[in-house]
Amino acid sequence: MSHISTGVEYALHCLLLLADLPPDAPEPSARDLAELQGIPAEYVAKLFTKLNKAGLVIAAEGVKGGFALARKPERISVRDVVDAVDGAKPLFDCREIRSRCAVFGDSPPAWASKGVCSIHAVMQAAEKAMRATLEAHTLADLAARTAAKAPASFAPAVVHWLDQRSAGRRAGRG
Amino acid sequence: MSHISTGVEYALHCLLLLADLPPDAPEPSARDLAELQGIPAEYVAKLFTKLNKAGLVIAAEGVKGGFALARKPERISVRDVVDAVDGAKPLFDCREIRSRCAVFGDSPPAWASKGVCSIHAVMQAAEKAMRATLEAHTLADLAARTAAKAPASFAPAVVHWLDQRSAGRRAGRG
Repeated sequence: MSHISTGVEYALHCLLLLADLPPDAPEPSARDLAELQGIPAEYVAKLFTKLNKAGLVIAAEGVKGGFALARKPERISVRDVVDAVDGAKPLFDCREIRSRCAVFGDSPPAWASKGVCSIHAVMQAAEKAMRATLEAHTLADLAARTAAKAPASFAPAVVHWLDQRSAGRRAGRG
Repeated sequence: MSHISTGVEYALHCLLLLADLPPDAPEPSARDLAELQGIPAEYVAKLFTKLNKAGLVIAAEGVKGGFALARKPERISVRDVVDAVDGAKPLFDCREIRSRCAVFGDSPPAWASKGVCSIHAVMQAAEKAMRATLEAHTLADLAARTAAKAPASFAPAVVHWLDQRSAGRRAGRG
C-alpha cells in the first residue's frame, strides 16, 4: 500500500468535481460522486465523513441534500485533504534503537537517547519537505489544470448527468 | 507500516557504526553489527546483501571477513540507503480513475488520460522534495552529529567489543 492512500486520490477527484460545479448545479451526494467516477460508493461515503469532520466540505440538508466545498478551492490545499483522509501518518517510525547498544549493557546512558535521533531528524526533514509541497498546491490549481485539458462540453455534461440523477431521485420519492 | 521501513533504520545505524570505526578495527560481520545493536541478525544479514548489491558496502574475504563501507561516508547519502533497502517505492499509486467518468460511457476520450494526472503530478513533486532532502544528508553528516553526542570513551568501547567478538571467533575456530 502506498503511503498516500487511494482514499486521498478518490477524495481529491471528488473535491475537484465539486470545485468545478457551477453555483446552480445540484449538490451531489457522495454516492453521485462515486458513481460518476466509477469508484466504490461506500468508501466514498466514509471519505466524505472525514472531509466533513475536517471542515473541507459541508453537507446540505433536505431532499436535494448533497455536498459542497466548505471554502473556496483556493483555500483548500492538497495537504488539507491528505491530512483529513490519512491523518498524521509519519513517513518513518523511529524505534529508538540507539539505546540498545551492547556496550551499554542494561543501563544505556542518558546521552544515547538525548534529543531526536539524527537518523529520525533527517526523515522528519524529508517529511516536512513533502508536506510543504502538498501544501503549496490547492484544489484551485488542480482544477485549473484539469479544466485546461477538457473540452468546453465536459463541464455541462457532468452537470447534465447530476441533473438527471437528481430528477430521478425526486421522481422516485414523489 | 511506515513508508520508510525499519530496514532502512537498521541499515543506517549499521552503516554509521562502520563509518565510525578506525581503520585498524576488525571489520564486523552482519551478525556482529546486529548483536552490537540488539536488532535481529537474520534481518540485518539480508539488509547487507542489499547494501552490497547496491555498492554501498564491500564484504572482506577470509576468517576476519566482515563488512566495510564501499566508499567514503561523505559519498553515501541517506537516499542511497533508502533506495538500496526499500527500492523504488512510490509515495502514491495513481489508479488513473480520471478515465472512468460516467459521462464518457464505455469510450473515454483521449484527452481524459492525456499526460500525467494533475493529482499524480503533485504527489510526484512531493516525492521529489522528500528524496531531495534524503539526498542532501550523508552518512558523514549523521556520523558527525552522533559523535558530537557521545563521550570520547564510546568509540573505543565499540572497538573493544568488536575485538573481543573477533578474538572469540578465532579461538572458536583454532
